[in-house]
Amino acid sequence: MPQLSTVSDALKGRFVSGDAVQVRGWLRSKRDSKAGISFLAIHDGSCFDAIQAVVPNTLDNYQSELLKLSTGCAVIVCGELVESQGKGQSLEIQATAVEVVGWVDNAESYPIAKKRHSFEYLRTQAHLRPRTNTFGAITRLRTTLANAIHNYFYRDGFHWINTPIITASDCEGAGELFRVSTLDQVNLSAGGAKLDYSQDFFGKETFLTVSGQLEVEAYCLAMSKVYTFGPTFRAENSNTSRHLAEFWMVEPEVAFANLDDNADLAEGLLQHVFTRVLEECEDDMAFFQQRIDNTVIDRLRSVIDNRFERMEYSEAIRILENCGESFEYPVAWGVDLASEHERYLAEKHVGRPVVLMNYPKDIKAFYMRLNDDEKTVAAMDVLAPGIGEIIGGSQREERLSVLDERMDEHLREELWWYRDLRRYGSVPHAGFGLGFERLLNYVSGMDNVRDAIPFPRTPGNAAF
Amino acid sequence: MPQLSTVSDALKGRFVSGDAVQVRGWLRSKRDSKAGISFLAIHDGSCFDAIQAVVPNTLDNYQSELLKLSTGCAVIVCGELVESQGKGQSLEIQATAVEVVGWVDNAESYPIAKKRHSFEYLRTQAHLRPRTNTFGAITRLRTTLANAIHNYFYRDGFHWINTPIITASDCEGAGELFRVSTLDQVNLSAGGAKLDYSQDFFGKETFLTVSGQLEVEAYCLAMSKVYTFGPTFRAENSNTSRHLAEFWMVEPEVAFANLDDNADLAEGLLQHVFTRVLEECEDDMAFFQQRIDNTVIDRLRSVIDNRFERMEYSEAIRILENCGESFEYPVAWGVDLASEHERYLAEKHVGRPVVLMNYPKDIKAFYMRLNDDEKTVAAMDVLAPGIGEIIGGSQREERLSVLDERMDEHLREELWWYRDLRRYGSVPHAGFGLGFERLLNYVSGMDNVRDAIPFPRTPGNAAF
Repeated sequence: MPQLSTVSDALKGRFVSGDAVQVRGWLRSKRDSKAGISFLAIHDGSCFDAIQAVVPNTLDNYQSELLKLSTGCAVIVCGELVESQGKGQSLEIQATAVEVVGWVDNAESYPIAKKRHSFEYLRTQAHLRPRTNTFGAITRLRTTLANAIHNYFYRDGFHWINTPIITASDCEGAGELFRVSTLDQVNLSAGGAKLDYSQDFFGKETFLTVSGQLEVEAYCLAMSKVYTFGPTFRAENSNTSRHLAEFWMVEPEVAFANLDDNADLAEGLLQHVFTRVLEECEDDMAFFQQRIDNTVIDRLRSVIDNRFERMEYSEAIRILENCGESFEYPVAWGVDLASEHERYLAEKHVGRPVVLMNYPKDIKAFYMRLNDDEKTVAAMDVLAPGIGEIIGGSQREERLSVLDERMDEHLREELWWYRDLRRYGSVPHAGFGLGFERLLNYVSGMDNVRDAIPFPRTPGNAAF
Repeated sequence: MPQLSTVSDALKGRFVSGDAVQVRGWLRSKRDSKAGISFLAIHDGSCFDAIQAVVPNTLDNYQSELLKLSTGCAVIVCGELVESQGKGQSLEIQATAVEVVGWVDNAESYPIAKKRHSFEYLRTQAHLRPRTNTFGAITRLRTTLANAIHNYFYRDGFHWINTPIITASDCEGAGELFRVSTLDQVNLSAGGAKLDYSQDFFGKETFLTVSGQLEVEAYCLAMSKVYTFGPTFRAENSNTSRHLAEFWMVEPEVAFANLDDNADLAEGLLQHVFTRVLEECEDDMAFFQQRIDNTVIDRLRSVIDNRFERMEYSEAIRILENCGESFEYPVAWGVDLASEHERYLAEKHVGRPVVLMNYPKDIKAFYMRLNDDEKTVAAMDVLAPGIGEIIGGSQREERLSVLDERMDEHLREELWWYRDLRRYGSVPHAGFGLGFERLLNYVSGMDNVRDAIPFPRTPGNAAF
């Protein structure tokens, strides 16, 4: 009896030459030789490489079925693992039986039959694109990155907190909001009735969350080390390669921590997950290095081997003012940095990730801790070469009186519970947000965040 | 210099008697002796137990500050770890310094000052309840369960797929939907304008997902083994202890798998995560056993040690018809089982989890695979004693022509991409959904799913 094997197990040493195996998967390509032998390349998602099955014309269904196979067909191959005659691969299957499980009716009509497609086109085939080399590799990378993040936190005693997706708070100021409702708007508006959110499902107006930070702070001040890892939403009409309406974000929050601790955590997290990616996704990373961006492996190694540069915002402004570059947006103390400034700092001035710290209070959120200079807050952004801001965080304002001065009355009323956290056993604490799709792009070298999430949501697009 | 330690590390063997440590946390209780010594119980979320700090009145701030400490205050304690004189705990801290980091201004006003509060009350203090014994334990349990789930799948080669939260599909029939929109409904309706969803953010009407299953099937037919683990939504007006408007669901999906494989996966997953919970959350489980439900440890052990009973739906109907119990809802072949029937089967007839299989097609969803009898579909529910249905799944219909017969024209048009999966390399595949909060209730013995998620969303409630 052949043993069931994934393609990965068959190729990577769990089985050896001479073993009888059964492999199940999909045809990536087929070549028929004049000598009456067919070569099938079969993938199953378990690793980058497909395994080659050598199929002799002596099999019963060779003429009736196997010659008709085309890319995308599902097969079960039984046979003996043997040393490969071809270059590149160590083992292949000498097939003794090939069962066709699922056909591609009309090979011409298979939407991803061709070997090369543009990423734009593949977004229209998001249900099929994981069958391609690139998106199979992205899927494995995404899984490995996520697992590395969860386990980095778990082993350090962090608790995963599933903060709410639906929120009644409209006041975080992180961008436009999606409204969530069950009111029958069409009929109500057709009837001329005024919409009354007190009649809505939650008894008030509700939205999709833009961040789990405020809620995770409540858990931080009980459990000490916590993080969120979940979907967040921005209803911005931004059609760029860096914006999604729905994206996943990682937000750790640590009690008794200041801005330096926060920067250390960001560095330690990225170094750990990049180490695991290089160890566990070697083939996939080799593919991205070769086909997408020939700097990706070096830049991960550079992050692993070097401490991030720490730089004061004020110092960054001085550098930008005196660097002799001509920027589209002018630089002066007090302005928020544009992407061109961030990239100059990370790519040209420092040459590796840089943590910018202590920004002017007027350009940052109300919950960031006011520094003693009363002009800056303990905010930080991690800027990475090739991608710009990848992490944004801060030490939080733990002093109720200072916090209250930065909130208006509406905010103070809405966030009564957030103020409570400063009334009862308040402690210094800090945290940050890491955009998961931007991280995946940084690791893979892919340009567009729409290619870093299975089914992207952007203005005008909620297909699938 | 004392070494920084969590409460868990100080109590559980990373440090030994004689070590100088610093512990940071919150006061759970304080007792002042007449002999001029105070005993502080300090928790930091790292484990169930608080650590005791013995504070002599010789400390500088003893009179001015430490005597005024109350439950909830944040402190940093430095001192020497010594063998505890009291019963129960092995080590305590002989304090040499206690810094008060955060006060509770008015001890009387602290919303969770009392030792016992009802769970109903604590839901109104969801920002503070993780500081209590019960909700600290639930938080650790939730983290451990989630980590066990992620790693069970990771080690078995599954890929974590983040299926979309916002969807244009309104046709899964799993319940009422929340609409997602950025249209200015109030002004539009006030002006008498008709709502036009083609002008909405995504160019059409969109909703919050009720399940990632259909989308994860697309990844299954490329990556072979996949799962989702994310938030899902039901806009049902159900005010029960088993329903949330927003809850987290785990949905694995496996290619080349049938209903038996599916039942095996459900069993293997639950056995693995229960094993890890008993190993890693011993103290928390002892608490739930003692205070919440004195059967919880036994029932986890029973799941670990025994195979789930497999039972045909038709057999279950025969058992229920002949068992002599009087049920509120009548039983006959073709009806969906009510909770009373499910609990009779799991609790009285079998006495452990039971997998019910092959339900009448008319009571199950369109995507479930039609059996050869053409009367039943390859559906399964896992019923657990004390909680009822905890898992629902099926083998999926992989034959396009059969699938099409169970879809109406609207559905076929909307799910064109789902039909594509059956046109291009279709294979038998199966999966299930596991409600994460119900799982947490099963493990902890807690009654209400509102106490199994940090900030519950239910009809009329989206606080925090």
